[in-house]
Amino acid sequence: MSDERSTRRIRLGMVGGGEGSFIGAAHRIAARLDDQFELVAGALSSTPERAHASAAALHIAPDRSYTDYAEMARTEAQRADGIDVVAIVTPNHLHVPVARAFVEQGIHVICDKPLATSLAEAEALAQRVRERGVLFLLTHTYSGYPMVRQARELVADGAIGDIRIVQVEYVQDWLGEPIEQQGNKQAAWRNDPAQAGPAGALGDIGTHAYHLAGYVSGLRLQELAAELSTFIPGRALDDHVQVMLRYEGGARGMLWASQVASGSRNGLRLRVYGSTGSLQFDQEKPEELWLTRPGQPSQCLYRGVPAQAGSTATPHRIPSGHPEGYLEAFAQLYRDFARAWRGEPGVALPGLDDGLQGMAFIEAVLRSHREGMRWVRL
Amino acid sequence: MSDERSTRRIRLGMVGGGEGSFIGAAHRIAARLDDQFELVAGALSSTPERAHASAAALHIAPDRSYTDYAEMARTEAQRADGIDVVAIVTPNHLHVPVARAFVEQGIHVICDKPLATSLAEAEALAQRVRERGVLFLLTHTYSGYPMVRQARELVADGAIGDIRIVQVEYVQDWLGEPIEQQGNKQAAWRNDPAQAGPAGALGDIGTHAYHLAGYVSGLRLQELAAELSTFIPGRALDDHVQVMLRYEGGARGMLWASQVASGSRNGLRLRVYGSTGSLQFDQEKPEELWLTRPGQPSQCLYRGVPAQAGSTATPHRIPSGHPEGYLEAFAQLYRDFARAWRGEPGVALPGLDDGLQGMAFIEAVLRSHREGMRWVRL
Amino acid sequence: MSDERSTRRIRLGMVGGGEGSFIGAAHRIAARLDDQFELVAGALSSTPERAHASAAALHIAPDRSYTDYAEMARTEAQRADGIDVVAIVTPNHLHVPVARAFVEQGIHVICDKPLATSLAEAEALAQRVRERGVLFLLTHTYSGYPMVRQARELVADGAIGDIRIVQVEYVQDWLGEPIEQQGNKQAAWRNDPAQAGPAGALGDIGTHAYHLAGYVSGLRLQELAAELSTFIPGRALDDHVQVMLRYEGGARGMLWASQVASGSRNGLRLRVYGSTGSLQFDQEKPEELWLTRPGQPSQCLYRGVPAQAGSTATPHRIPSGHPEGYLEAFAQLYRDFARAWRGEPGVALPGLDDGLQGMAFIEAVLRSHREGMRWVRL
Amino acid sequence: MSDERSTRRIRLGMVGGGEGSFIGAAHRIAARLDDQFELVAGALSSTPERAHASAAALHIAPDRSYTDYAEMARTEAQRADGIDVVAIVTPNHLHVPVARAFVEQGIHVICDKPLATSLAEAEALAQRVRERGVLFLLTHTYSGYPMVRQARELVADGAIGDIRIVQVEYVQDWLGEPIEQQGNKQAAWRNDPAQAGPAGALGDIGTHAYHLAGYVSGLRLQELAAELSTFIPGRALDDHVQVMLRYEGGARGMLWASQVASGSRNGLRLRVYGSTGSLQFDQEKPEELWLTRPGQPSQCLYRGVPAQAGSTATPHRIPSGHPEGYLEAFAQLYRDFARAWRGEPGVALPGLDDGLQGMAFIEAVLRSHREGMRWVRL
Repeated sequence: MSDERSTRRIRLGMVGGGEGSFIGAAHRIAARLDDQFELVAGALSSTPERAHASAAALHIAPDRSYTDYAEMARTEAQRADGIDVVAIVTPNHLHVPVARAFVEQGIHVICDKPLATSLAEAEALAQRVRERGVLFLLTHTYSGYPMVRQARELVADGAIGDIRIVQVEYVQDWLGEPIEQQGNKQAAWRNDPAQAGPAGALGDIGTHAYHLAGYVSGLRLQELAAELSTFIPGRALDDHVQVMLRYEGGARGMLWASQVASGSRNGLRLRVYGSTGSLQFDQEKPEELWLTRPGQPSQCLYRGVPAQAGSTATPHRIPSGHPEGYLEAFAQLYRDFARAWRGEPGVALPGLDDGLQGMAFIEAVLRSHREGMRWVRL
Repeated sequence: MSDERSTRRIRLGMVGGGEGSFIGAAHRIAARLDDQFELVAGALSSTPERAHASAAALHIAPDRSYTDYAEMARTEAQRADGIDVVAIVTPNHLHVPVARAFVEQGIHVICDKPLATSLAEAEALAQRVRERGVLFLLTHTYSGYPMVRQARELVADGAIGDIRIVQVEYVQDWLGEPIEQQGNKQAAWRNDPAQAGPAGALGDIGTHAYHLAGYVSGLRLQELAAELSTFIPGRALDDHVQVMLRYEGGARGMLWASQVASGSRNGLRLRVYGSTGSLQFDQEKPEELWLTRPGQPSQCLYRGVPAQAGSTATPHRIPSGHPEGYLEAFAQLYRDFARAWRGEPGVALPGLDDGLQGMAFIEAVLRSHREGMRWVRL
Repeated sequence: MSDERSTRRIRLGMVGGGEGSFIGAAHRIAARLDDQFELVAGALSSTPERAHASAAALHIAPDRSYTDYAEMARTEAQRADGIDVVAIVTPNHLHVPVARAFVEQGIHVICDKPLATSLAEAEALAQRVRERGVLFLLTHTYSGYPMVRQARELVADGAIGDIRIVQVEYVQDWLGEPIEQQGNKQAAWRNDPAQAGPAGALGDIGTHAYHLAGYVSGLRLQELAAELSTFIPGRALDDHVQVMLRYEGGARGMLWASQVASGSRNGLRLRVYGSTGSLQFDQEKPEELWLTRPGQPSQCLYRGVPAQAGSTATPHRIPSGHPEGYLEAFAQLYRDFARAWRGEPGVALPGLDDGLQGMAFIEAVLRSHREGMRWVRL
Repeated sequence: MSDERSTRRIRLGMVGGGEGSFIGAAHRIAARLDDQFELVAGALSSTPERAHASAAALHIAPDRSYTDYAEMARTEAQRADGIDVVAIVTPNHLHVPVARAFVEQGIHVICDKPLATSLAEAEALAQRVRERGVLFLLTHTYSGYPMVRQARELVADGAIGDIRIVQVEYVQDWLGEPIEQQGNKQAAWRNDPAQAGPAGALGDIGTHAYHLAGYVSGLRLQELAAELSTFIPGRALDDHVQVMLRYEGGARGMLWASQVASGSRNGLRLRVYGSTGSLQFDQEKPEELWLTRPGQPSQCLYRGVPAQAGSTATPHRIPSGHPEGYLEAFAQLYRDFARAWRGEPGVALPGLDDGLQGMAFIEAVLRSHREGMRWVRL
């Protein structure tokens, strides 16, 4: 580890995320929060005016505002002060080509999920990332919550015994009306197979639910059986997902993802039941983690409370009782990336393996659905 | 309606429910709570000492304490002050033969669920009940909660639009260890196919979940696909149930019932999502019903609060803020029976239809499970 | 203890509680719930028609329906099958004269709170009760909740160390409008000094809050300073109470009672903080008790959960997860009375001491308020 | 408004907040979150090594790392690229002298609360700030929560009618042991009258509670009566505060602040009851605001939900359901400052008036306590 690496801010570029983007703004706040990154370059939009206006608003120098990501990759790679890492916050179909352009230049990648629009595409990228030896962070944001990490550590430490049941759900209602047919851009690309790939709610939020379940339980999924639904007429992709799960070791479970569940905001919830206890996490109350053992009081674990199992896993910025939230969880992933980049030991980033598993999950769900909900092996 | 019928207490007999029985005691409190019944006869146990000791403790006259339910039915039918109705709180396999004995004597029946151990047996009973013209109440207790009734009325009134999604679960942990192999009587008969029938958790609590979903949503289930699991080695019946649901009109859903979900007490929860809102009910917080419409504040409806839709459906004994619970919900079913018996109009008891549907549900789940989770029509 | 006493139902009479009465109905359900009482006589109203109609509806024999409580006391005392105990559910000003009439006849008393309308009156009654040796139960209902008893036991066992702070509140909104001027009978007598005594919300609910705080903390109040308010124009008595508390041993606290706190139902809440932990109880969620120690997870204790401190104090009828509520807590007091009546050991009823302390509390609050909120010793 | 002012980052300096400081780190994250500030200078500690190490870690140039705040004020005022604003995050006794040094140079001030250690000192500063015409932000963080702002707007819009009752509390437990005598620096200065001033918990958190109550209710406090306690032996200042409140217009209330309430984390809670409804806010669940009207369902308002009264007041960065927390609330104050600095209209910063009122509150509480809890006019 060079001394310079250990102290200076990491130079960040961004592809996508121009004005009005939700996820681009979230990435930028996440990058700023712990002051380990500076945003210095971007291809924020393929529309030149929008790209340059967005860049100016973000204090990016005009000569580092690009409209073509390939040019950005080439140019930045040649600058002495070129970006160290690129954040990719485009619609899904561009994740792989953009990542590839930067990987070829040896530039590290932070990429939104899902990794790709097909497993084959994802595997080819993964191969190239390994060959080039760059860092690759897939932003499964919810794994950045301190209480999610504590849950994972509790499970690994045997706090709930052998896992029997995994119940995970991710429900929203923002696609409860056909807003993609009414000018909403966020909705439009997510329901356009050319941009989103073959999965709708499945790719957008189902993959988060699947990742969270695996991240906390530590279990590999062996088989699934799934039914997709599309409740809104005229919609091209699924907006509702139901999956039966068979995990290694005999655990059973169910996954439900929906973007038409009226009255839901961002309801990502995980419950894991083992032979000696259970854990419950609700993303809308992220400072809490419930641990209950049979015949005992329920325990509400809280971020930053010292005397609780697994608490070594919970980094935090402010004391317990001063709520942290989604942006702090997101920032945790950037902080993890920074630690990995600086060469600190013991950092495990969600990355290519998670992305490949997510793509395998998507493809298995699509296959099971097409084939009448038969069991499909992963 | 005779004048006598309109005022006197209803004479109640009981079969099963001797000392130590949970559900027998619950029935008796439910019958007493609103003072419309008096318990005057019983075949509380097939063991004479236990039967008579239990009867004495309950102030039943010695000559009306029986050990043979058939004799009880015949004898009581001939008394001028014989019982008006019998409550059947035996293990499942006796529900039909006991009910039959009393029905043949023209005595009304209050019966615990599930109705029978097979659909065929249930249908034969139903036929005979109709022929004899007696009242038949199946104690789907949870439909007695005021907020469950309010939910049903809200759905019927269109408060959440067309239903899209039904999510129901009933989870406990009391069978998380093999206590049926360790002398627990409640557990022993429930896991003995000769007494419980072919369904374990499925019959014991899955039927409650299924009933609640149909009761509130007003929808008929058309198809299901199910997987049963048995987590505890040596257990004869299922202790964990997962079902995919296809309702008439296109609604989708999932049902989960488990008695090995560590850290769960009596977690019956229902969520129904329609095109314009959703309802959520949790049996462990039965005074509350959540109604949320997209883009609006969540509303927490509360028993006895006047200015809320559907509140005409919520009978209650004490003002809002003085919590009622499980026993009051149970008593509501007895109160409903009393109203029906007294000839009051507009009373719909959960009864044979519910019981037949429950048995059809059980058989469909068993079939789907046997056949690799294929879709089965009801 | 005679054998008869150990088994037969206790014969109960009631004064007050005719049709439309909330608290009379609650007493009757409480008496019935555990089947240890039978209601056999009553002076349910001073209006003959209302008294007799109410009695008939309750299956009280016509010759035991009275309109004069004094006559009822004399007559019942002379019957071989006369009542064992009378429940007094009248407006406050009659508590003492009615109790006195029955006590003189050697009949036990169950009396609603507050005990009297003045401390002097209460002391005279207490003296007479002691001389006559009858049982006296004051229905501080909330002390019947299992989790309240568990809280008391936890404090006594030192689970939270030395108590520092007691915060108690009881807030409602049903007197937020001048309904006593609009025909509401419940409100009318409570705001009529001739019937309610000199305290409004203070006597009606402030005494419950005061009792609960003392019951759980085990501490004696030494001094208080109070301000009463009347928010509704034309109202004769206080509808809002604020009190500063100094307990023996140095603990400090605050008590707040209000019947004009818009949007409150029946918000009785207690928090007790000791040197090593705290307890929180909310009457609207009576199955839960929160125990939190510094730097540790919060524990949610639940009725009927075996492995928790103090659980020996929690009697219950149905398993954990099947919610019990207000009526079951009320019934617990009747059950306790029955145990005392049958001569069972170890039963401590809320009674005269609690009533005398409550009256002393009321008088101290009134005095402090009159004298500009100065500190008053109890 | 110059064009430059409308776009460039604001140059921020900081006094106090060296390594290990909680509040300094919180200020810095708040300043970074919305990318409107850059930290360019600091007198982070009076110990040179600590000052310079902290500055280096924060990427402050060596020539702008000071150890003397007076020198920093003079030097920065003379630089063409000197700081625009200074953030003061020292112990209380330095707030006024530091602020004064920068105000004299015409540099804007962001200052932690309480404003001063005496009202006289605060008034002198306020006079000078007005004369110099600089901006002054007092960081009453909790007024930056979107739901607090929505509450304020709801009250102002009459959503709960005329206010009757204000209940506010702020409870923690981190001073439940004498940690100031055991080397904890945060605790040590807070309990040293020379650094903290004459108020302990009163100044540290009581002022937050007082501010929040006034901010939301819009009411001025007219009189108070207070008792302070010190539970931990050897502690120089109060650690527990109880206050009775009389607001203009007849509203009544209570304020409770404690740092020895075992099992409390950061429990700032406000409840305001009006003639037609009430509002409840709990800082530990800051995304929610409860609005309840008598006889109606409770409404849980949520940040970012469009169809709810007062929502125009709720700025936010990420959609509803993605929790924001304490740091985002803090950042809101910095964002407000930036808007004011850029000359945008309609920005009301918590500032000198709030600080003066806070000091008047502290002095009134101290006086009332000294004089036996007599009523003191503000």
